[in-house]
Amino acid sequence: MTGAPLVYLDANATTPADPRVVEAMLAALTGLPGNPSSGHAAGREARRAVETARREVAALAGAERPDEIVFTSGGSESNVAAIRAALAARPGRREVLTSAVEHASVDATLDRLAATDGIVVRRLPVDGRGRLDLDAYRAALGPATALVTLMTANNETGTLFPIAGLVPAAHAAGALFHTDAVQAAGRLDLAVAAGGVDMASLSAHKLHGPKGVGALYVRRGTAFSSLITGGGQERGRRAGTENVPGIVGFGVAARLALADGDAGRLARLRDRLEAAILAALPGAIVLGDRDARLVNTACLAFPGSDAEMMLHRLDRAGIAASSGSACAAGGAAPSRVLLAMGLGRLAGSTVRISLSRFNTDADVDRLVEVLPAIAREARIPETAA
Amino acid sequence: MTGAPLVYLDANATTPADPRVVEAMLAALTGLPGNPSSGHAAGREARRAVETARREVAALAGAERPDEIVFTSGGSESNVAAIRAALAARPGRREVLTSAVEHASVDATLDRLAATDGIVVRRLPVDGRGRLDLDAYRAALGPATALVTLMTANNETGTLFPIAGLVPAAHAAGALFHTDAVQAAGRLDLAVAAGGVDMASLSAHKLHGPKGVGALYVRRGTAFSSLITGGGQERGRRAGTENVPGIVGFGVAARLALADGDAGRLARLRDRLEAAILAALPGAIVLGDRDARLVNTACLAFPGSDAEMMLHRLDRAGIAASSGSACAAGGAAPSRVLLAMGLGRLAGSTVRISLSRFNTDADVDRLVEVLPAIAREARIPETAA
Ligand SMILES: Cc1ncc(COP(=O)(O)O)c(C=O)c1O
Ligand SMILES: Cc1ncc(COP(=O)(O)O)c(C=O)c1O
Repeated sequence: MTGAPLVYLDANATTPADPRVVEAMLAALTGLPGNPSSGHAAGREARRAVETARREVAALAGAERPDEIVFTSGGSESNVAAIRAALAARPGRREVLTSAVEHASVDATLDRLAATDGIVVRRLPVDGRGRLDLDAYRAALGPATALVTLMTANNETGTLFPIAGLVPAAHAAGALFHTDAVQAAGRLDLAVAAGGVDMASLSAHKLHGPKGVGALYVRRGTAFSSLITGGGQERGRRAGTENVPGIVGFGVAARLALADGDAGRLARLRDRLEAAILAALPGAIVLGDRDARLVNTACLAFPGSDAEMMLHRLDRAGIAASSGSACAAGGAAPSRVLLAMGLGRLAGSTVRISLSRFNTDADVDRLVEVLPAIAREARIPETAA
Repeated sequence: MTGAPLVYLDANATTPADPRVVEAMLAALTGLPGNPSSGHAAGREARRAVETARREVAALAGAERPDEIVFTSGGSESNVAAIRAALAARPGRREVLTSAVEHASVDATLDRLAATDGIVVRRLPVDGRGRLDLDAYRAALGPATALVTLMTANNETGTLFPIAGLVPAAHAAGALFHTDAVQAAGRLDLAVAAGGVDMASLSAHKLHGPKGVGALYVRRGTAFSSLITGGGQERGRRAGTENVPGIVGFGVAARLALADGDAGRLARLRDRLEAAILAALPGAIVLGDRDARLVNTACLAFPGSDAEMMLHRLDRAGIAASSGSACAAGGAAPSRVLLAMGLGRLAGSTVRISLSRFNTDADVDRLVEVLPAIAREARIPETAA
């Protein structure tokens, strides 16, 4: 990896492609030149590869049938497509129930629909650990609710929402239920069929697959209209020539994630990391719901230290971490997630460490070695704080 | 290419990735693990690669500035995004002027907007060679026209519309002008800036780049709202983690296409192919506008022969060709393009041969060797015809 950081601890922004994914994509790029919609041999071979990947992604998601998987260009497209399709499927209803901590591709999409279509967006608050108030959730559902869209796992804190437990009330109210499972896929058992959600968004690049490929699970029988209209690809649910190498890579990534059983190891690495940092810096705070969190995510506040300066110094030390959502990174605005948790005062002092398959004990050792000094060097002068 | 056809003559459906594209993508897949939105070294390197590709695609399109290029997941997304953005930019206007021979991603998108938003779609007819009536075009423009969307080159016949000549009247009427340049990019000089279009759609996989990556040229200053809403990627014009390897591959493909100067060779190959087939089968007909056609496309009707049977036999002989648009292939419906040309009677008898960089004289020789017999074997019995 030319010039890549020695220690990559930013898996929630994106993960490096697994070498087995790369190998399969290379084989597809050279060996599958055809368009899957073409009837000739080259087309049929490309089609077969896409359908194999569809079965692999369906298995990862816990779908009942492969044809419940629609391939997209990523998690953002899946989220936008799901939200728009749900509103089209419930034309008499004008409300969407969501949370205050969703990813931008949900949050900004709902803002747009509020502005252009008069959709009413109800954002449920979260507590200081990022948890929903279940009574508020049930109270907010009603006959105008077209859709509930709540994420399975938060990208900044790793906090999990108890999705399967939330679905029945939405269905009882006649609403559809979509979950943004982008951060959860490959990290916990999604079991979309068992959980009862109508739609779920996935993205390959969070699970060692390629960037630019995602999927939307659409439960069989769910009314669906496509965002990208045109040819009849994906059974009329998503037009455009299929990203054959990307889809093949996603399939392999899904298969590997399902087989890898890496959660226990990641949880141990993460817990060791947190314990060592808290021991060295007793003022540091672990954010998120420690009882229900992604195993790979450590969201750490260093009160009084400047997170941007810390990240800069970590970067110079060859360590890649993040201040939160990658697509908001660089922006001056404080994290919406921390604001919603009532932790706005920590937003400028929070560093997210997120692990994946390729992280080792040595990576954690290295972080633990340099981070305490960096947090101290990055202290904001009292006067300015 | 495992099991790939020996002779691939279906470039308008998709082209094989150039080995130099594959090499660059492989390097990106292994060497650029970061998210371009991340501030650390891995992120910055990915960002640089995306911006290099943006310059290369801007050069291919003939854009004035790289930031006029928005990367998308392909030609279909670009078309849908352009149409929806134009309607949002001209809220007081409800008409879209298009042709009867556009790609499904334009045609079906307009049908959807007619159904959901009450947009009025005016489809200009074409003549027997696929040409627009320029007087009808000018007459159809008016104060209600929000957008003119007309393709640069037709995917089935290769017929070119004289885009640059059509733009001024649209602008004079206060409408935006979008062109679907998916089949033209890399095959003729697009010169979008000089031509004056407001938006133009491109797709990498038609020019030896990867499937699942495209671009939308958006002229500087054009009001634009994104189809995929969310994070601030692509300067707020297209959310979602960038498809870094795909975009890198598109950049290389654009650079190669700009440098390759292959048009003369392709035109000679195509002309030789047509001449040889017409000599062997005097009843065959070359469809499209022979004066203004893509150099790589031969759309040939074999009256009295069954095109599906011909394609099947060509496939068995190791030759990949098509009956028209790949995304309509397999469908029973006759080609909309041929119907619009008043050639519905030939729709079941038409075979499209489309060439690219990797086709050689030997490929043409092979086709010319087997096709006449195949056309004769595929004759529809008189009684059934
Ligand atoms: C929770 C969540 N949803 C959606 C996305 C968007 O996925 P993508 O980048 O593939 O568009 C991301 C990551 O970027 C995410 O973390
Ligand atoms: C004229 C035209 N426009 C748009 C497209 C769609 O491009 P993509 O397959 O990349 O979505 C195609 C080809 O599929 C095409 O031929």
